[in-house]
Amino acid sequence: MTGTNRAIEIVPVIMSGGSGTRLWPLSTDVRPKQFHALASPRTMLQETALRLAGPAHAEDGAPSFLPPVIICNRSHERVIETQLAEVGVQPLAVVLEPFGRNTAAVAVTAARMVQTLKPGALVLLLPADHVIADPEAFHAAIARAAHTPDRIVTFGIAPTGPETGFGYIQRAEALADGVFGVARFAEKPRLEVARAYLAEGGYYWNGGIFLFAPEVMLAEMATHRPDIHASGLEAVDAAGRDGLFVRLDDGRFIAIPSESVDVAVMERTRLAAVAPCDIGWADVGSWSELWRLGGKDGDHNLIRGDAVALDTQGSLVWSDDGMEVGVVGLRDVVVVATPGAVIVLPRDRAQEVKTIVERLRARRC
Amino acid sequence: MTGTNRAIEIVPVIMSGGSGTRLWPLSTDVRPKQFHALASPRTMLQETALRLAGPAHAEDGAPSFLPPVIICNRSHERVIETQLAEVGVQPLAVVLEPFGRNTAAVAVTAARMVQTLKPGALVLLLPADHVIADPEAFHAAIARAAHTPDRIVTFGIAPTGPETGFGYIQRAEALADGVFGVARFAEKPRLEVARAYLAEGGYYWNGGIFLFAPEVMLAEMATHRPDIHASGLEAVDAAGRDGLFVRLDDGRFIAIPSESVDVAVMERTRLAAVAPCDIGWADVGSWSELWRLGGKDGDHNLIRGDAVALDTQGSLVWSDDGMEVGVVGLRDVVVVATPGAVIVLPRDRAQEVKTIVERLRARRC
Repeated sequence: MTGTNRAIEIVPVIMSGGSGTRLWPLSTDVRPKQFHALASPRTMLQETALRLAGPAHAEDGAPSFLPPVIICNRSHERVIETQLAEVGVQPLAVVLEPFGRNTAAVAVTAARMVQTLKPGALVLLLPADHVIADPEAFHAAIARAAHTPDRIVTFGIAPTGPETGFGYIQRAEALADGVFGVARFAEKPRLEVARAYLAEGGYYWNGGIFLFAPEVMLAEMATHRPDIHASGLEAVDAAGRDGLFVRLDDGRFIAIPSESVDVAVMERTRLAAVAPCDIGWADVGSWSELWRLGGKDGDHNLIRGDAVALDTQGSLVWSDDGMEVGVVGLRDVVVVATPGAVIVLPRDRAQEVKTIVERLRARRC
Repeated sequence: MTGTNRAIEIVPVIMSGGSGTRLWPLSTDVRPKQFHALASPRTMLQETALRLAGPAHAEDGAPSFLPPVIICNRSHERVIETQLAEVGVQPLAVVLEPFGRNTAAVAVTAARMVQTLKPGALVLLLPADHVIADPEAFHAAIARAAHTPDRIVTFGIAPTGPETGFGYIQRAEALADGVFGVARFAEKPRLEVARAYLAEGGYYWNGGIFLFAPEVMLAEMATHRPDIHASGLEAVDAAGRDGLFVRLDDGRFIAIPSESVDVAVMERTRLAAVAPCDIGWADVGSWSELWRLGGKDGDHNLIRGDAVALDTQGSLVWSDDGMEVGVVGLRDVVVVATPGAVIVLPRDRAQEVKTIVERLRARRC
């Protein structure tokens, strides 16, 4: 417990490195998911940044958010700058990775950046492409997590069903109000196992959101993966600074072993903690999930853009960038059209988008 | 019967005025159906022009084709020029209409152009956007029709089923080998009526293809619709000539009453004849018909362009202009994608494309 007079300061470090194909053809390497307005009129990056502006919680002594640090691929320099400017967010820094190097490298980068730029502040490390429908509950969870700054706190998402697509965290003893030790991190389970977790209770989805003091993360990384710690610090300390932009050097960055922060640190450290929360979280990992989350019309259709659906029910019809889309007589399908590509498939087979992308890429080779 | 020593010469007059939306989004006002490669690697215009090059029939004294006249909308001047050059067809003339004015105006224009440019030749007036799978049978039918140059001969397509989308022609007495008088022209029938026609025999589809001597058509038009005759001749005779291009004047052209040649002449004249033929004719009036006509893979899919279909059967998946199209898990659907628009609908509802186009247009107003 900190219990000081000085309010805790938190720097959100937004990981914008994803380039998933699960929402193809909207999400592409050039413009991945976080740069699209999927669940609201603002892009997911914009929503993530705005959600973490101002005080974290409306109580006395609640932590306050400093401007964010963004960690992204260097090809997205302009879109980051534009999208943050559109919503009036001025970041502390934008760290440009030459390529993706997994989240352990990101955790070291985040810790070192905040340690340097805002000594004494905590790091809230989180993905740019998640929906959090209840930001107040999220703020409250952050305020609780900030009570254990000697720990690396992961946010445990209250499960709404026996999902098999996420890792689970089992909580242990209480450490503070709403913060628990971690009994174990469990891999993505089979369905029966997931059901057993829910029946037993005390299990949460691992949403990949972390709160920690930079020194704690760096010390634990040094203990458990000294190679990542050393090469990560070297890459960050040698990076060129250009106004807001911090450019990581190719050669030094590739020297960092590629590992997830979960495997490198969380599954090994004795300082892991979990802050359970029920925040309307969703990772929007498929078109079917987007349909589930979104506002639907009387026919249970989610229609976006310049699209018309006749005698169609339970479907997502998504027109991007002025594409005219007409759908007749279909049930429970996903139709997504951009000026370069189209996908059509049953809603319950939305995960097969990846297969389609692979097949189309193979044709082009 | 002509029975002269001089071989009969025929000028194909290709009507390229269509701008149908039944094959939307591929077919548009800017680039209607006849300018697309639908049923072969060549465009329908190109196939139509090539089909009518060289001798019409491999017998002594068979008619021979002169270079064609094209009648089209003036906005298509360039695409006509380009597409004919690609297949080495040099037209006699390209008549540019300022707007569509129906087929009676076209018939007068065709007759007058041929009368002026190639005195003594017959006119073969036909649409640019029909499939004729058996050109030899078509040539043989033309040779038969040329035996009655004092008649206006329409080609009667041997019905392959009780289609309700075409008008029918009932034949009367034989006039020559394979040419009959016309008992009557029947409107598009109800299904029971169409079935009765087929059971009775002697009925043919009206494919909108005509063979006539210019003087016969002009005389019959003068008799039955002197207004169209007079205003049509005036428009053609006053047209500006610019190399191959004959530019019809807006003011004179709009003065021609808009009527079909069937109503203006064929249903009234005593000189109508019908040459029955079985030539693999199709007007490709819908995506489902194109699917029926086209080459399909082992899953009964017709796939065109940069498209991938997984676990999909009985479907048409059409990618235009490099669009990437992915389809999973669908049955008997039509998916057509251009860089501006997409349509998805069951194959047996392909006629509802028109409704979709209307709805999308209404949104834009």
